[in-house]
Amino acid sequence: MSVVSAAACRTSVRLADGREIIYFDDVPGLDRSAPDRRELPPYAPGAELRYDELLGEEILIAAHRQNRTYRPAPGQCPLCPSRPGRLSEVPADDYHVVSFENRFPSLGGPAGGRCEVVGFSGDHDTTFADLPAERLATIGRAWLDRTLELSARDDVEYVFIFENRGAEIGATLPHPHGQIYAFPYIPPVVRKMLASFNGRNDGCLMCGIVAREAGGPRIVSETERFLAYVPQAARWPYEVYVTPRTCVTSLPALPEQDRDELMGLYADVLRRFDALYEKRTPYMACWYQALPHMCARIYTPQRTADKLKFLATSETGAGAYLNDVIPESAAARLRDL
Amino acid sequence: MSVVSAAACRTSVRLADGREIIYFDDVPGLDRSAPDRRELPPYAPGAELRYDELLGEEILIAAHRQNRTYRPAPGQCPLCPSRPGRLSEVPADDYHVVSFENRFPSLGGPAGGRCEVVGFSGDHDTTFADLPAERLATIGRAWLDRTLELSARDDVEYVFIFENRGAEIGATLPHPHGQIYAFPYIPPVVRKMLASFNGRNDGCLMCGIVAREAGGPRIVSETERFLAYVPQAARWPYEVYVTPRTCVTSLPALPEQDRDELMGLYADVLRRFDALYEKRTPYMACWYQALPHMCARIYTPQRTADKLKFLATSETGAGAYLNDVIPESAAARLRDL
Repeated sequence: MSVVSAAACRTSVRLADGREIIYFDDVPGLDRSAPDRRELPPYAPGAELRYDELLGEEILIAAHRQNRTYRPAPGQCPLCPSRPGRLSEVPADDYHVVSFENRFPSLGGPAGGRCEVVGFSGDHDTTFADLPAERLATIGRAWLDRTLELSARDDVEYVFIFENRGAEIGATLPHPHGQIYAFPYIPPVVRKMLASFNGRNDGCLMCGIVAREAGGPRIVSETERFLAYVPQAARWPYEVYVTPRTCVTSLPALPEQDRDELMGLYADVLRRFDALYEKRTPYMACWYQALPHMCARIYTPQRTADKLKFLATSETGAGAYLNDVIPESAAARLRDL
Repeated sequence: MSVVSAAACRTSVRLADGREIIYFDDVPGLDRSAPDRRELPPYAPGAELRYDELLGEEILIAAHRQNRTYRPAPGQCPLCPSRPGRLSEVPADDYHVVSFENRFPSLGGPAGGRCEVVGFSGDHDTTFADLPAERLATIGRAWLDRTLELSARDDVEYVFIFENRGAEIGATLPHPHGQIYAFPYIPPVVRKMLASFNGRNDGCLMCGIVAREAGGPRIVSETERFLAYVPQAARWPYEVYVTPRTCVTSLPALPEQDRDELMGLYADVLRRFDALYEKRTPYMACWYQALPHMCARIYTPQRTADKLKFLATSETGAGAYLNDVIPESAAARLRDL
């Protein structure tokens, strides 16, 4: 679709403490060279990677995060563009998409890896689902860029793109943004998925799921090359997977036109989540790449207009998820919105 | 310690809809035959067990739970003893400990298994940590009884004893109580623990942990036969394991005197949790039995007096836990309370 090279819309600069910020613009030629005029203490990511021998999983201990920015007052948002007298994490006076190193990271330093924050818009009050197609395309391009560059690092084993939205689920900043964790190890959920893919002798696990779900009662939305469905064993009241109809491992393996189609379907699902209740629905969204067959996954703990599903002892202590909403009912509701 | 037989302190009766309730008393000879005078609809547990093929885990779909009792008004507590004009789930006008089939279970019916609610006291306003030693002994006896009886069922593979306390983490009833899930499968966290135990060639995994932790900087409290420590890779701001110093697989393998000692140390840890902040700290507690070396685990998401740790996308989507509190600091604070 685009006739402009990605490089012409990309500018990498440094923040006052040496962290990198990358601007991804909808159009080329914008000046993003504004310097960061703040005085910041030296950047010293201090996460420590430990190993839980009983459960066989890595744990990240990041004590410095106790002091991270927590629901800042209006006018103090670190993700709004900088204005005279109001300097933020983004030195420019406007932006389309930015990705920058998290000031309070869970990775980096001795643990290795890197945490980035991805601003989806300079507009504090918008949300992902309401972004126009050209912005979705820019975000797709930014995610592709970050996937390629971070995956190539020696201290990175897995690039995990995600979004937490909503104070109800602990998001500390309302400004529309996502995050990227470039893990120095393959995280446990991805290891489990890989084991499930590798444990099959009869073709791709996700291709089998696609064949079963397409056109069925758990479909939420479909395009030519992608489909969005509620998994038959959903963990969350509303949970949707978005996946290509054929095996595609990662964003870099998708042609640009297909990536734009995927971003459009992903935003369509987010719009459906936002239409579930008379408020912006809190949600978590994640992108599983570097699998035999990639997928995105969106879910919300909002089980009714005023009740959240909590992960309590059954889930956190036994790993046994309870879901009060029948997946076929959830799909019908999301499909009809 | 006790010279009274357990059977003399145990009474099983039926509720109006056929569910079983068992009274466990601190002393023998109490009359617990009061009938349930309510009119209840037929009991029809309706959970469905599904399998998540991507993550390789069972999921319980229990749509009827959407209508479960949710923070009842004062005077409407289903766990208070019945009084004239105020009939509850417990027909007697007082009780010490009860365990009864959950009216809104996540198991049972086609899924198999059984869910029980364990009332720790007839007193609505007390809490586990404040119970006297004779009540702790009775709870230990009730847990032993339920472990033995439920484990013996053909439709039960694993008996999981736990407590969710606090509205902050989704507990819908403030009356002091725990729960028992008798799963028709071994839940994922226990499978992982078993794999970790079985993956060792050099002795018991937990005995190794005990040898490393005893007397060290992560110890919270110790008795002759048990110790309580913060795991070196803790997932939660405050998290404690309580375990025997030597290999004991389950509660039924403990002599009564040792069980009482264990219950005392467990309550000591809960008292420390309650002393962390100027309110009752929300916590989750679980008992891992049927392992080569059993343990209890207590944890809270309360990371400061006014902030909760949320399980957000890193934890729920990637399985990567972030902990903002250094385990050695958490242990020192709990130890000194």
